[in-house]
Amino acid sequence: MKIAVDAMGGDHAPQAIIEGVMLAKQDFPEIEFLLYGKEDEIKKYVTDETNITIIHTDEKINSDDEPVKAIRRKKTASMVLAAQAVKNGEADAIFSAGNTGALLAAGLFIVGRIKNVERPGLMSTLPVIGQPDGGFDMLDLGANADNKPEHLVQYAVLGSFYAEKVRNIATPRVALLNNGSEETKGSELTKKAFELLSEEDSINFIGNVEARDLLSGAADVVVTDGFTGNAVLKSIEGTALNMMGLLKSSILAEGFKGKMGALLLKNALRGMKDEMDYSKHGGAVLFGLKAPVIKTHGSTGPEAVRYTIRQIQTMLKTEVVPQLVSYYETKE
Amino acid sequence: MKIAVDAMGGDHAPQAIIEGVMLAKQDFPEIEFLLYGKEDEIKKYVTDETNITIIHTDEKINSDDEPVKAIRRKKTASMVLAAQAVKNGEADAIFSAGNTGALLAAGLFIVGRIKNVERPGLMSTLPVIGQPDGGFDMLDLGANADNKPEHLVQYAVLGSFYAEKVRNIATPRVALLNNGSEETKGSELTKKAFELLSEEDSINFIGNVEARDLLSGAADVVVTDGFTGNAVLKSIEGTALNMMGLLKSSILAEGFKGKMGALLLKNALRGMKDEMDYSKHGGAVLFGLKAPVIKTHGSTGPEAVRYTIRQIQTMLKTEVVPQLVSYYETKE
Repeated sequence: MKIAVDAMGGDHAPQAIIEGVMLAKQDFPEIEFLLYGKEDEIKKYVTDETNITIIHTDEKINSDDEPVKAIRRKKTASMVLAAQAVKNGEADAIFSAGNTGALLAAGLFIVGRIKNVERPGLMSTLPVIGQPDGGFDMLDLGANADNKPEHLVQYAVLGSFYAEKVRNIATPRVALLNNGSEETKGSELTKKAFELLSEEDSINFIGNVEARDLLSGAADVVVTDGFTGNAVLKSIEGTALNMMGLLKSSILAEGFKGKMGALLLKNALRGMKDEMDYSKHGGAVLFGLKAPVIKTHGSTGPEAVRYTIRQIQTMLKTEVVPQLVSYYETKE
Repeated sequence: MKIAVDAMGGDHAPQAIIEGVMLAKQDFPEIEFLLYGKEDEIKKYVTDETNITIIHTDEKINSDDEPVKAIRRKKTASMVLAAQAVKNGEADAIFSAGNTGALLAAGLFIVGRIKNVERPGLMSTLPVIGQPDGGFDMLDLGANADNKPEHLVQYAVLGSFYAEKVRNIATPRVALLNNGSEETKGSELTKKAFELLSEEDSINFIGNVEARDLLSGAADVVVTDGFTGNAVLKSIEGTALNMMGLLKSSILAEGFKGKMGALLLKNALRGMKDEMDYSKHGGAVLFGLKAPVIKTHGSTGPEAVRYTIRQIQTMLKTEVVPQLVSYYETKE
């Protein structure tokens, strides 16, 4: 099992990335890591050289680079080399905390789509409140800006495979994000998608779900178009961040009383933060490609890298991608 | 100034509605209220009869009625009679906490659109965290499931008028909700809308805003299609509700220590809840109609009704709707 790591992607690269890899090595001593980036900088954080190969390159893609251009022009960028390694069969998966658009482009143009999957989707496992280990898989979170109803059916199949194989949920409940729970609700896109999802035998379609009920665990897999998915994800993140900030400033405004109260509630507040933090499920998968292509937040720290390596390990071990390839080979 | 009130709409009707009207009467003794619904039930809560007229009807629209059918068939329902009163010039605005879809239908088919406004949008003033009196106006929150780029320009004009006249913001900053801040980002719809918004001289268009930055006050007016707006609003509400619930259960799980901590943080926690509660800005306006048509949550209590009456009073006093009518009369 070989993972190609873009060691230079992310706000705290390469330190956070390599420190995370070192943690993951303890969990999974069998994984071989190919680290792409500046050798001398990477070496500073490599505390154990077994199963580590560093492939030196000076070039990298920046967070403000225009994605498609960057992939085409920076042919020796760490991310591009890592994607090439997957394409050439030298690695089984790629991991990056760098430029999201560029990784999507690298995934599509270098790693390539699974045959008969028209539009790979970006998928994350988001938290279910009140279930510390619970979560739901949502896609598309923004790989595409416009989707057709047929794409949403593909997302449903992809998400179902992931929930079942990787997250070990038998017969995952698949729902369509919509603006009402009734069957007749929706836009032109969701009305048609509802029809197609109802006819799709390979999934357990449970109908519409509203955005209000997502975090309550209304479904195991939620499908939507990439524009809406992106807006919903960012709304959830923005609200959670703003509320944590508001809680903090409200406590500070109370002075000594607030300090005492916060001290007494330390565990409760930490528990709350932990429960909203979905990095324990790993990163976002660009799903529908010939190999796992995984992205984490640019601000990611070593622990989140570790969780993401665990996620990739599970994806590889369960062979979810080869199973999808077989499934789609029979579809025309 | 006369307001037609659907006294029978909402989970706690007519009690919460009439109690709210009684509170609002103290703030605005000049307003005349026309209360539509069951006279004997309404009378129980009328503590002051000045400027109150009850129009008795036994019929009402239920929350699970099919909206358009209900409006057409229940011709003497409290909501329908209230809308008719506005149409006939017997009242200046209509207020309901009932079936949202039915109120939208009553607004469109009975009250009617402003000439040259193609698609009225549902608009609320949502909270800006850290600014207890701050807020931003967002539309469409779900009156329409599919929108054209031109509709988003109309929403921008409508929202600007509201922010300026009713909320007293000089030169409101108008933003387009999009999946990235760069000009080139977006779906087919938002790319085209960006172009049209940039060309619209009557507004102060500041570009794209991402859903993540909404609650931080990135703009005064945010325009989006009704499907996305609905999903974003419900995501914000769902996340806020889930986090408040999570906070509560985390505190309870801490037992005595949690109880003590919560007691010390009572003011802080209440302040936090208050700041997320945007009912102080009033209800949702179906904007673009010939008169104010205002909806509040079905679960609304007397205080929220009071705030909504204040909002309607401001809309009528500032003549925002007649000004819109004049503005759109010159457009062909």
